[in-house]
Amino acid sequence: MRKIRLHLAYDGTDYHGFQRQKGQKTIQETVEKALSRLTKESVQITASGRTDRGVHAQEQVCHFTTTSTIPAERFALILRDQLPIDILAVDSREVELSFHAQKDACFKTYRYQIETAPIPVITERRYFTHYPFPLDIQRMQKAANDLIGTHDYTSFCSAKTEVENRVRTIYQCSIHTQDSKVMIDVTGSGFLYNMVRIIAGTLYQIGRGKFPLDHIKEILPAKDRTLAGPTLPPEGLILLRVGYRSWATSS
Amino acid sequence: MRKIRLHLAYDGTDYHGFQRQKGQKTIQETVEKALSRLTKESVQITASGRTDRGVHAQEQVCHFTTTSTIPAERFALILRDQLPIDILAVDSREVELSFHAQKDACFKTYRYQIETAPIPVITERRYFTHYPFPLDIQRMQKAANDLIGTHDYTSFCSAKTEVENRVRTIYQCSIHTQDSKVMIDVTGSGFLYNMVRIIAGTLYQIGRGKFPLDHIKEILPAKDRTLAGPTLPPEGLILLRVGYRSWATSS
Repeated sequence: MRKIRLHLAYDGTDYHGFQRQKGQKTIQETVEKALSRLTKESVQITASGRTDRGVHAQEQVCHFTTTSTIPAERFALILRDQLPIDILAVDSREVELSFHAQKDACFKTYRYQIETAPIPVITERRYFTHYPFPLDIQRMQKAANDLIGTHDYTSFCSAKTEVENRVRTIYQCSIHTQDSKVMIDVTGSGFLYNMVRIIAGTLYQIGRGKFPLDHIKEILPAKDRTLAGPTLPPEGLILLRVGYRSWATSS
Repeated sequence: MRKIRLHLAYDGTDYHGFQRQKGQKTIQETVEKALSRLTKESVQITASGRTDRGVHAQEQVCHFTTTSTIPAERFALILRDQLPIDILAVDSREVELSFHAQKDACFKTYRYQIETAPIPVITERRYFTHYPFPLDIQRMQKAANDLIGTHDYTSFCSAKTEVENRVRTIYQCSIHTQDSKVMIDVTGSGFLYNMVRIIAGTLYQIGRGKFPLDHIKEILPAKDRTLAGPTLPPEGLILLRVGYRSWATSS
């Protein structure tokens, strides 16, 4: 029995999210089917976390176990041929049996992308939310700093969130631009349901001048979802990176 | 009766080309349906030319006539809402009744995109052909210059080409790179069936050192398709621009 760590990238536009769901096309099901065909076993993959319907990943880390004798590095190569164009097997390697893609993840970075040009670019349209209005980036960056730290982020998660403990740590939240594109990068210990999309929606409202500069500082202690900005749509969201403590030693 | 010029951009991945085909999803059918719904007329669009299955466009120019009173500029705005994410109505405006999107086109620029990195980028994968091998760009550029001029391009079009007259003019063929990406831009009076993809395949073979530097100069007079390189796949091809003599006066 060996454990393989698989680095996937995907364009989530045409998928009902990462997690297997009966009767829906999901990333998990598509990858598991390909791996099961390949190994002639029933392979189950465990990811660092789910991504929602329509959300993309540049780096999603998964693990699976197998008794197959296929060299670990070959999995990515073979999958690259066999998976559809919108799922990319970037890399595969053997890891210690103790490695766990979800439990061992110590940070994640998400990027939310907004196109502010009057007309979007066709080849970028699947990966940017299009809001053709000017944003005050300096104002957004100042407000973003108030998110950093260890807080109860109840104000920034979906009212449907079921987990009790909403304390998380945000290590970094930075905004950068490239021409008319605005990218919001958030790195944290973990994220609640819809959290990055609500953070992006709140920073967006601050950038538009609809919320005061201190809005985040004020609504964090209130623990009230209704005070934050809207949940921005999934197409602008990309899971950029998953970090592991044991990364270097598990290869 | 008014004539409207419509600038479309599209991601051709999921379409059977531009031209209407029974039982297939095409760009033309999708846009005509939306325009017909909008105007309550049976609208037919005429494009600068077809693009093949899987080929993209950053600028495809079309025209259509209508008796609708919708302001010309509104067509693009309304279509932008109503068309799927992979077809973008960039711009619409009224033109003289004599304007013809195909007959008045005096040049077209196509771009062929190759990703040479070992692993492609997920968000660019639909628009680049992935060949993870080094290319000699200087060699490709030198050879590309031999394409320029007015020639019979029989060696560079599909053997299935039906048109008799294969004389066309190539005004420019330039290669540029961005990190590991290689872009081949070809501007010409018009193009034969598969011509840009065969030019790209021939330049690719020259860049890989599989064909001699003078290959294009030698095979142009031979008028023999079998001497040129392979027809590269459609995903790397984008119709970048269509030029009109009367552009400025017809707005």
